[in-house]
Amino acid sequence: MTGRYERGLARQAELGATRTEAYDALADIAPDLSRLAVEFAYGDVHARPGLDAARRELVVIGALITLGGVEPQLRAHMETALNAGLRPRELVEAIMQALPYAGFPRVFGAMTLARQVLDARGLLPLTTGNCRGRSVTPDAEGLR
Amino acid sequence: MTGRYERGLARQAELGATRTEAYDALADIAPDLSRLAVEFAYGDVHARPGLDAARRELVVIGALITLGGVEPQLRAHMETALNAGLRPRELVEAIMQALPYAGFPRVFGAMTLARQVLDARGLLPLTTGNCRGRSVTPDAEGLR
Amino acid sequence: MTGRYERGLARQAELGATRTEAYDALADIAPDLSRLAVEFAYGDVHARPGLDAARRELVVIGALITLGGVEPQLRAHMETALNAGLRPRELVEAIMQALPYAGFPRVFGAMTLARQVLDARGLLPLTTGNCRGRSVTPDAEGLR
Amino acid sequence: MTGRYERGLARQAELGATRTEAYDALADIAPDLSRLAVEFAYGDVHARPGLDAARRELVVIGALITLGGVEPQLRAHMETALNAGLRPRELVEAIMQALPYAGFPRVFGAMTLARQVLDARGLLPLTTGNCRGRSVTPDAEGLR
Amino acid sequence: MTGRYERGLARQAELGATRTEAYDALADIAPDLSRLAVEFAYGDVHARPGLDAARRELVVIGALITLGGVEPQLRAHMETALNAGLRPRELVEAIMQALPYAGFPRVFGAMTLARQVLDARGLLPLTTGNCRGRSVTPDAEGLR
Amino acid sequence: MTGRYERGLARQAELGATRTEAYDALADIAPDLSRLAVEFAYGDVHARPGLDAARRELVVIGALITLGGVEPQLRAHMETALNAGLRPRELVEAIMQALPYAGFPRVFGAMTLARQVLDARGLLPLTTGNCRGRSVTPDAEGLR
Repeated sequence: MTGRYERGLARQAELGATRTEAYDALADIAPDLSRLAVEFAYGDVHARPGLDAARRELVVIGALITLGGVEPQLRAHMETALNAGLRPRELVEAIMQALPYAGFPRVFGAMTLARQVLDARGLLPLTTGNCRGRSVTPDAEGLR
Repeated sequence: MTGRYERGLARQAELGATRTEAYDALADIAPDLSRLAVEFAYGDVHARPGLDAARRELVVIGALITLGGVEPQLRAHMETALNAGLRPRELVEAIMQALPYAGFPRVFGAMTLARQVLDARGLLPLTTGNCRGRSVTPDAEGLR
Repeated sequence: MTGRYERGLARQAELGATRTEAYDALADIAPDLSRLAVEFAYGDVHARPGLDAARRELVVIGALITLGGVEPQLRAHMETALNAGLRPRELVEAIMQALPYAGFPRVFGAMTLARQVLDARGLLPLTTGNCRGRSVTPDAEGLR
Repeated sequence: MTGRYERGLARQAELGATRTEAYDALADIAPDLSRLAVEFAYGDVHARPGLDAARRELVVIGALITLGGVEPQLRAHMETALNAGLRPRELVEAIMQALPYAGFPRVFGAMTLARQVLDARGLLPLTTGNCRGRSVTPDAEGLR
Repeated sequence: MTGRYERGLARQAELGATRTEAYDALADIAPDLSRLAVEFAYGDVHARPGLDAARRELVVIGALITLGGVEPQLRAHMETALNAGLRPRELVEAIMQALPYAGFPRVFGAMTLARQVLDARGLLPLTTGNCRGRSVTPDAEGLR
Repeated sequence: MTGRYERGLARQAELGATRTEAYDALADIAPDLSRLAVEFAYGDVHARPGLDAARRELVVIGALITLGGVEPQLRAHMETALNAGLRPRELVEAIMQALPYAGFPRVFGAMTLARQVLDARGLLPLTTGNCRGRSVTPDAEGLR
C-alpha cells in the first residue's frame, strides 16, 4: 500500500529532491515538520495527477519569487524544476515572467540564484539559440 | 515593423486579453499606465520566446495568488491561461499547487475566483476523469 | 480508528468551525481543497497536542492580520478563538498587539472585523473592567 | 503644553485628515486604537520636523501601494497628500513610480483609487501640460 | 510617575528583552527609533493589561513568521516568549501552527531560528513527553 | 534620437546609479533583465517628467522598506536618493515615516542600511540641527 508518506518520498525522488539537510537539521526539535512536508507538500499536493511536475514547479517558482526571503526553497525548486525537465532557458524565462508582478528587486534576486544553480551544473553561459546577448542592439527590432 | 506596443497588443489578442475596461477607465488620469502594461508586461515580457504562453501564465498565477488582493488580475490571468490552452483541471491543479507556499486562505480565495471563471464558461461541474469527488473515502488510497 | 480527517472534523467541531459555506461552494470544482483543509490544517496541525486551541488561534490571528486580504478567514478565526475560550477583551488585545509589526492599516481592518464578530454575539460595548474608554485623558497616567 | 495627542490632532488638521469615521466606529470596542493612531502615527511620527508633510506622504503612498489590501488608508493618504500640496499630476507620477517595485496589479489598483479621489475633487481630466494623451504615438520619442 | 518610556523599559526587563545592540548601534543616526520602540511597542502596546505577555508573544510570532525577512526580531521574540513562560514544546507548536497560513518555507526558516534559540539555552533535544520522534511510524495512528 | 535605453542610462547617470555589479553578473544568463531595468524602470518610469528624482526615490524607499528582503536595492535607492539631493536627515525621516505602515522590524532593518550608507559617506554622526540626541528626556516636550 502506498501511503501518503511513501508517495511523497517517491515524488521527491523523481524530482531529485532528496531529504535535504534542513530536514535532518530539525530532527531534534520538530521532526514532524519534515514529515508533514513530505506527506502534505509532496504526497498530498505535488504528487497529485492532473498537472505534470515541471509545470507544478512553475507555479511554485512564481509563488516563491513573490514571497521573497525564502532563498533556500527557491533555489531547491529551481533545481527540481530542471530535474523535472524544464530547460535552462525556460527557467530563465519563467523568472523573467514574474517581472510585472513581483517587481525587479525580487526578480534580480531570483535570477542570481538561478545563475548559481546553472553554474553549478556547468550550464553557463546559456546557449544562444534564442540568446539575448548584449550585442543585440536595444530597441532595434523587438523580437527578444 | 513590429514595435513593442504592437507586439504587446498581438500577444494580448492571442491570449484573448483584449484591452480591459480597467485600461479605458484610467484614460483620463494616466493613459500611460495602460500603454506601459501593453508595451512592457506583454510586449517585452510575455511575448518573449523561450517559454510558451500557457506556462508563462502558470508563473503569473503562482505570483498573483501569493500577492493577494489582486483579484481582478488573478481572474484575468485564469482566463488567459485557459485561452492559452491550459485545461480546466490543470488550472485547478495549479491553484492547489500553491497550497504549501501561499497557504490555505489565499488558495481558497483563488479557487473561488476559478470557480466563477469556469462557471461562466459553462464548464462546471468538472469532469470526473480524475475526479476528487467527495464520495472518495478520505485516506483510503492516497492516489488523488 | 481515528483518522486524520475525523480528527480534523472533531477539532473543527470543538472550535465551532463547522464545514463552512466556502467548503461546500467549491465542491464542484475542487472538493479536495476542503478535504485537505480538514485533514492537514486541522487534523495534522491544529489538533496536535502541546498547545491549547485558544493559544493556537493567537498565532493564526497574528499571521492572518499580517497577511492581509484574507478577511473571511480572519473573521472565522476570531470566531473560533472566542469559542476556544479567549475572552472578548483578550481578542481585542491580541489585535492591538499586532500594531508594531503589521502596522495600523492592517490592524484597523482587523479591529473592524472583530467589532462585527462581537456585535453579532451581542457583546458590545465591551465591559469596562479594564476599559480604555474615551473618557480617560490621553497621556495622563500611562496605565492602559 | 502641547502633548503628543494634541500634536497629532494638529497635524491631522493641517492635513485635512480629521478624525475619520473609522476611528469613531471602533469607539465601543477599542478606542485606544484611534488614540494611538493620533498619538503615535501622527504625533510621534508624521509631525516630526525634518521632512515636510507632502514628502512624508510620498513614503506612505509607496508603502501602502506595496502592502496591498489597505484601500481605505491608501485613499486617505492620497487625499492628505493633495491637501499637503502635492499636485494631481505629481500624485499620478508617484503611483507610476511604484511600478517596477510593487508591480502592475497593485499600481492599477492604486491608480483606480486616485481617479476616484481626483474625480470627487472635480480635477478630471488632468491638464495636458505634460499630458500623456492616448494620441501620442507609442515609442515615437520617449519623452513621456 | 510612571511614564510611557519607563513602562516600556520595565516590560522589556520583565521579558528579558534588554536594550539590544541594534538599539545602541543606531544611536548616532536615529536614536528616536529606539526610543519609540520602547515607548510605543512596549510601553503603549505590550505593557497593556488584558492579555498576558506570553500570549502576546504568540501573536507577534505569528506576525513575524508571516512577514518574513525579519530574523533578528523573530529570534528576539522567541527568546522573550520563553522568558515570559512559554515552554519550549509550546514554542515549537506555535511555529507549527503557522504552517497552513504562512506556508512551509517561512515555517522552516522560523523553526531553524527556534532550534538555535533552544540550543543556546541547552534545551536540545526536546523532551519526548509528547515527542514526535522519527521512530514513530508516519500515518500509523494520527495522534500527533 | 533619445531612445528608451539611452534615456534610462542618462537617468541612472544623473542618479549616480551606474550599471551595478548585479547587472554585469547576470550577463551570461539573462542580459535582458538588466536591459529591461534600464529601459523600463529608468527610461519609462523614473525619467518621466512630472515628479523630481528625489521625490520619486521617496516613493521607492517606502515601497522597498515595505517589501522587505531586498536590501541591495533598498541600499542602492538610499544612495540615489542622497545623490538626487535628499539630505541625510531627510533620508532618516523618510525611513521613520514608514513606521506606522511597515512596522518596526522592517524600519530597523532599513535604518541599519541607512547607517551603513551614511557612514561610508563620512556623514556620521548626523548634525544636531534638529538632533534627536539621547540626552533629550523622553516625553518631556514632544517636539522631536
